[in-house]
Amino acid sequence: MSKNYGPEYVRAIAPYQAGKPIAEVAREFGLDEEAIVKLASNENPFGVPPSAVQAMTAAAADLGRYPDANGFDLKGALSKRYDVPAEWITLGNGSNDILEIAAHAFVERGQSVVYSQYSFAVYALATQGVGARHIVVPAKDYGHDLPAMLAAIQEDTRLVFIANPNNPTGTFIPAADIQAFLDKVPAGVVVVLDEAYNEFLAEENQFESAEWVKKYPNLLVSRTFSKAYGLAGLRVGFGIAQPALTDLMNRIRQPFNVNSMAQAAAIAALNDKAFLKQSATNNAAGYQQFTEAFDKLGLQYVPSYGNFVLVKVGNDLAAGARVNLALLKQGVIVRPVGNYGLPEWLRISIGLPQENAVLIAALTKALAQ
Amino acid sequence: MSKNYGPEYVRAIAPYQAGKPIAEVAREFGLDEEAIVKLASNENPFGVPPSAVQAMTAAAADLGRYPDANGFDLKGALSKRYDVPAEWITLGNGSNDILEIAAHAFVERGQSVVYSQYSFAVYALATQGVGARHIVVPAKDYGHDLPAMLAAIQEDTRLVFIANPNNPTGTFIPAADIQAFLDKVPAGVVVVLDEAYNEFLAEENQFESAEWVKKYPNLLVSRTFSKAYGLAGLRVGFGIAQPALTDLMNRIRQPFNVNSMAQAAAIAALNDKAFLKQSATNNAAGYQQFTEAFDKLGLQYVPSYGNFVLVKVGNDLAAGARVNLALLKQGVIVRPVGNYGLPEWLRISIGLPQENAVLIAALTKALAQ
Repeated sequence: MSKNYGPEYVRAIAPYQAGKPIAEVAREFGLDEEAIVKLASNENPFGVPPSAVQAMTAAAADLGRYPDANGFDLKGALSKRYDVPAEWITLGNGSNDILEIAAHAFVERGQSVVYSQYSFAVYALATQGVGARHIVVPAKDYGHDLPAMLAAIQEDTRLVFIANPNNPTGTFIPAADIQAFLDKVPAGVVVVLDEAYNEFLAEENQFESAEWVKKYPNLLVSRTFSKAYGLAGLRVGFGIAQPALTDLMNRIRQPFNVNSMAQAAAIAALNDKAFLKQSATNNAAGYQQFTEAFDKLGLQYVPSYGNFVLVKVGNDLAAGARVNLALLKQGVIVRPVGNYGLPEWLRISIGLPQENAVLIAALTKALAQ
Repeated sequence: MSKNYGPEYVRAIAPYQAGKPIAEVAREFGLDEEAIVKLASNENPFGVPPSAVQAMTAAAADLGRYPDANGFDLKGALSKRYDVPAEWITLGNGSNDILEIAAHAFVERGQSVVYSQYSFAVYALATQGVGARHIVVPAKDYGHDLPAMLAAIQEDTRLVFIANPNNPTGTFIPAADIQAFLDKVPAGVVVVLDEAYNEFLAEENQFESAEWVKKYPNLLVSRTFSKAYGLAGLRVGFGIAQPALTDLMNRIRQPFNVNSMAQAAAIAALNDKAFLKQSATNNAAGYQQFTEAFDKLGLQYVPSYGNFVLVKVGNDLAAGARVNLALLKQGVIVRPVGNYGLPEWLRISIGLPQENAVLIAALTKALAQ
């Protein structure tokens, strides 16, 4: 890395570590792609919904044109679904884009950003990317400690990231606690409520955070089509916030950030309630399948509200890396989380019943070695 | 716009003005979408190449998975095509993303960026987005004045944007002039050579700027699949630079910035030489069709090396807006360029012969009013 170019804070960024693609693992370990089970990136095991494939086919003819920079149709569908004006919506190239846009739109170099220990890696990256100061609040039971996060806010804090459920730990914050937090946060501090895993919540835990946006002008709700909606490969997410925030985000947003296929597919997926229900049902069953097996194996895990489980695979600092390698050799890809400061743990996405069974067998074998 | 949020330099951004989508014009003017001719966004009138459609169909099954964050296959194809290591390539969500990443990776607040008057609007946006100082060098004959740009570089300049051919004016800089510029630019200043329209150049003007990257460690060549390759709706572009620059850009790049469909389609399009040739041939013919008509109408235009022509439609400062509205009412969408400081001009993309004929007839009628 050269010292000749770029701001010091950019040179200090540790790039995001993506889940290994199936093709890469096949190349590295000399395995057949078909035999590999990937439970590494919290993807939907049913893949893309058939309704979205149909919508894409219709959109394919027009791909020589630039996408609609204003996302008229998709914003219209989201506006209807969440009962907010279309002008309150910002479209993103995945919700990763929404998180990055928020950092660029609301924070300048030297100001501070508050987020929790063990929360999504992109919060740290987005903070670092604008040269801001990180205020990392120690987690409580692997989840957000909201009173401590509130107390951690400084005069120069411009942004707070909250993940609910949180990735990679799967923890959940009840609606009342978030509202109490929002009631007390200083008006000039923007709160990003990242709900990438919202659709996996059981009915009794669901709440309409879009309604809160009407009450809190400093709230930005971030959502994605990459998880329950099955569109990770297409890249589409969105933010909901009042015009004061949305206006600034749209000044930072690249005009054609969301491709035409993604816009068309997202509208179809949004209206495909059967697919969403199927995904949630499969996820609940898979969670039971995993946790029963972990209990049998005597493994500690963090109770999860997402489509993945954080499980402790040993007591030494090399445990996660060691078991991960043993799983890779058996053609099973999961996510080591040493970069999150959790080197004894692995994050395992919930797949189809048969995929989960393969993971359980491979994990049992890896732990016996 | 609220003064409560965001850095001052973000609040000062004037958002990008995209070409009006066909559906929007149909809604606004009560026209039939089928009857509208759009020559506004320098898109390929042949649309997406059939070879790319085929590649997308194969990729569609896997859209539930995240894209390959490292773009192994596409970088491999580009590496082979341009004879540079795959590690020298940065993939972008369109080349717009490459331009934005470059600004974020190489420039910090208060430092300066050099670009030409009448050059691509995203240079100003990317500069403003990082709170940098704009050094805008007066154009010469509507194109880049490289000696003046060299002289304009200050102690705190970190980035120079050069567009070749330039959008929206269509001007071209011969290879020898760019090399002379690169020989003299201070080593710590990154030069972005934006070649979005390169594939439309006549054979005698073509040169392999990727070869220059081997010689100049401060050179970043930016290319796109949105123009000659016909993939504007999918969003894919790339940068070529030595590792010192590429390493920093990949720290700023969002890990899943290029969707799976775009990666698959780009590989097919890159290898589809027949489509590229068809596009270039049609473009050359369309340029002749346009310029002969402009000559007949007595209109001044800037000789263009791209897939569009900048034409002067009047001598008063309202001419561009007035003629643009007259064209919209006839169902023809072109690009007003008042935001570029060219209010007497319109930028018109070259379409299919029949589309060009519709434009010529509508323009003739508009000017007669």
